Amino acid sequence: MKKKLLELRSIENLKRQLNKLPGIGPKTAARLAYYIIKMPYNEAKNLIDAIAEAKEKIRYCKECFNISENEVCSICSDDSRDKSIICIVQEPHNLITIEKTGEYQGLYHVLLGALSPLHGIGPEDIKIKELIDRVKKGKINEIIIATNPNIEGEATSSYLIKLLKPMGIKISRIAFGVPMGADLDYVDEATMARAISGRISA
Amino acid sequence: MKKKLLELRSIENLKRQLNKLPGIGPKTAARLAYYIIKMPYNEAKNLIDAIAEAKEKIRYCKECFNISENEVCSICSDDSRDKSIICIVQEPHNLITIEKTGEYQGLYHVLLGALSPLHGIGPEDIKIKELIDRVKKGKINEIIIATNPNIEGEATSSYLIKLLKPMGIKISRIAFGVPMGADLDYVDEATMARAISGRISA
Repeated sequence: MKKKLLELRSIENLKRQLNKLPGIGPKTAARLAYYIIKMPYNEAKNLIDAIAEAKEKIRYCKECFNISENEVCSICSDDSRDKSIICIVQEPHNLITIEKTGEYQGLYHVLLGALSPLHGIGPEDIKIKELIDRVKKGKINEIIIATNPNIEGEATSSYLIKLLKPMGIKISRIAFGVPMGADLDYVDEATMARAISGRISA
Repeated sequence: MKKKLLELRSIENLKRQLNKLPGIGPKTAARLAYYIIKMPYNEAKNLIDAIAEAKEKIRYCKECFNISENEVCSICSDDSRDKSIICIVQEPHNLITIEKTGEYQGLYHVLLGALSPLHGIGPEDIKIKELIDRVKKGKINEIIIATNPNIEGEATSSYLIKLLKPMGIKISRIAFGVPMGADLDYVDEATMARAISGRISA
């Protein structure tokens, strides 16, 4: 009762909403809330508008589930891309990471998640059915699986390989190993183990 | 040029706005932006509304510059508070920290900053003139300075003491020393030095 009276209701609410964001604990939420209070009005307005605009304009590409401001994303609608190859990623920002390399010219399929029985996320909760539908249309020759190198990503990868193998498509998984520029002494054991087991003849 | 095409303009803008918040670097901003994109619409709406409401409703108390939803804050308008004593703090959240103890029954004065010549913040940039005006009205017997125990806070404290001393008011500074419940071995040297120089006869 006494504690409730201490802070303004509008500050409490702002802190609660900020606290819901990932990686924003109660202390950071409080710091951000007080910062927002102190911000010039037009700067706070810019932040509000940016959130509102992103929520309004951004939707998922109906082909690959990349984020897009149009019905079909800029990659799927780009005629210069190789439409016979699909790279599977978990999230739209993973796609950006790959695009930044300039190394890949095919299409993508964004799962919008990964299998995680622990969190109750099964095959029907991510865009697997839609992937199979795309493959069934018959123009895909190769699939590269670029899910994350962790438990969920690996589980998703195994599931997809089991599902796609019988469809007669060339399937590959991105390589795991020692990162470029790393000092070998600082590479963790799991990565080093993958680097050795996945060694390539020189 | 190539890089600009990679991300949607609305995502880039959201990341830029989030990146302006304190403690939110480019990576965290990107993570938050993608989280906001994935959020259900009504949750994003709650966040937007919370920011807008806080900016609309919250203003500074015309007496003490605490944040308030009214012209005068709940502390200044509370008849049970001792109006002869003022505790000076830098920010509204510092006031909350003191209120939480339940140890203090007087009024506050929030400076909304601290002196920092390095950042170009002088006495006219924080609420010092307004403090002097309050003191000059003559009902104040005692002032407790609770600015932060860092360079800016200490500079502000020294400045205020020099300014207020000639006005014939009892002035004190909150005690600095070893935090309660701390293990002495983990107390930093500066704190320990203050604890020794500020020792109280038992």
